[in-house]
Amino acid sequence: MKALTAALLEFRDARDWQQFHTLRNLIVSLNLEAGELLELTQWQRDDEIEALPADPVRAQALRDECADILLYLLLIADKAGIDLLEAARVKLLRNGEKYPVDKAYGSRAKYTELGN
Amino acid sequence: MKALTAALLEFRDARDWQQFHTLRNLIVSLNLEAGELLELTQWQRDDEIEALPADPVRAQALRDECADILLYLLLIADKAGIDLLEAARVKLLRNGEKYPVDKAYGSRAKYTELGN
Amino acid sequence: MKALTAALLEFRDARDWQQFHTLRNLIVSLNLEAGELLELTQWQRDDEIEALPADPVRAQALRDECADILLYLLLIADKAGIDLLEAARVKLLRNGEKYPVDKAYGSRAKYTELGN
Amino acid sequence: MKALTAALLEFRDARDWQQFHTLRNLIVSLNLEAGELLELTQWQRDDEIEALPADPVRAQALRDECADILLYLLLIADKAGIDLLEAARVKLLRNGEKYPVDKAYGSRAKYTELGN
Repeated sequence: MKALTAALLEFRDARDWQQFHTLRNLIVSLNLEAGELLELTQWQRDDEIEALPADPVRAQALRDECADILLYLLLIADKAGIDLLEAARVKLLRNGEKYPVDKAYGSRAKYTELGN
Repeated sequence: MKALTAALLEFRDARDWQQFHTLRNLIVSLNLEAGELLELTQWQRDDEIEALPADPVRAQALRDECADILLYLLLIADKAGIDLLEAARVKLLRNGEKYPVDKAYGSRAKYTELGN
Repeated sequence: MKALTAALLEFRDARDWQQFHTLRNLIVSLNLEAGELLELTQWQRDDEIEALPADPVRAQALRDECADILLYLLLIADKAGIDLLEAARVKLLRNGEKYPVDKAYGSRAKYTELGN
Repeated sequence: MKALTAALLEFRDARDWQQFHTLRNLIVSLNLEAGELLELTQWQRDDEIEALPADPVRAQALRDECADILLYLLLIADKAGIDLLEAARVKLLRNGEKYPVDKAYGSRAKYTELGN
């Protein structure tokens, strides 16, 4: 992940693109990439979406959109001084407290509805 | 990243949540988290957004939203058999071809408008 | 629709909010409202979503989100000098050309794949 | 608006597309169109976005995206039995209570932060 971030920043700087990489622009761009990921599911039934990774062309599209999201996430993290892996570890721990196993087991309810 | 993914899958399985984690649901959820990231910029001027990481409360919100996006990205990657880092490396290389330094330098133009 | 727009602009001006209503802010806000609409479908199966209008509480939420989207759409249209109904009529005609009945009948294919 | 809805439903039925128009699919599609609207602002500065309606090509794109959003909104409203204009009127009244003029005047604060 560090090597990838380094390559990404080098890519950005070689093109003098840092001037465009405001936090707002990066966040908007990440949303647009998330939308392209969502578009892969448009008009599809659940079973067709589940079969998506088995289709080489669509699996490639899926990989590309996931990659784009990760790349913008790394740019945002670099810009905002965030240690992504550490942030995710901390969030996962907090989710564990919001969704205790005995109450959340097999349930889709939001933590505000779990009746703690 | 491997350790984080392992912890995340353990979190999911301890709650028997894999049944809800269809590819569609994960993609929709990632989009909703991206929206929450975008919401941090709502009604803000550019300079206010740039100052966001310096404000402890809003920086925490920013870290949390980035973390949520990464967690869903890892779940999607696991579900679809994607090596995220490898996918991002490949995509970055391809972007380098679409945006050659001499044509893309200092430009916001889309690659389709770069006049290759 | 004209009466609604008039009431909406009066609402905005009474609060001196026009200063915040840049085209960017309105477009971002519309996207956030669209996300709240999408959130009503999160973790739900298709049959549960179809049943949504029959549940008074969730139907109210659905109405509210649709209303919010329309309100932002009216603000954007006012700001950009767009006649929404006319724009939609024109777009529908154009869609009719992109999706001719004999080729598009019963098909989910995008117009670029209809083999014109 | 009634005439537009009638033309839209006729367009849909002539192509036998009602089968694809589940509430989920319509909501996802509206989100994708909202994303295309957002894309018109990508990498743009505020002043460039404000100038968008004055540029014939980009103004046309803006009109088209707004039209697409309205068309999906009408399909959702028809599907869910929502009177859009009435829903927006009611929501605007409620917003007026959440944002009383004396507290919300000139403020971007969310109603939860207005200190009622």
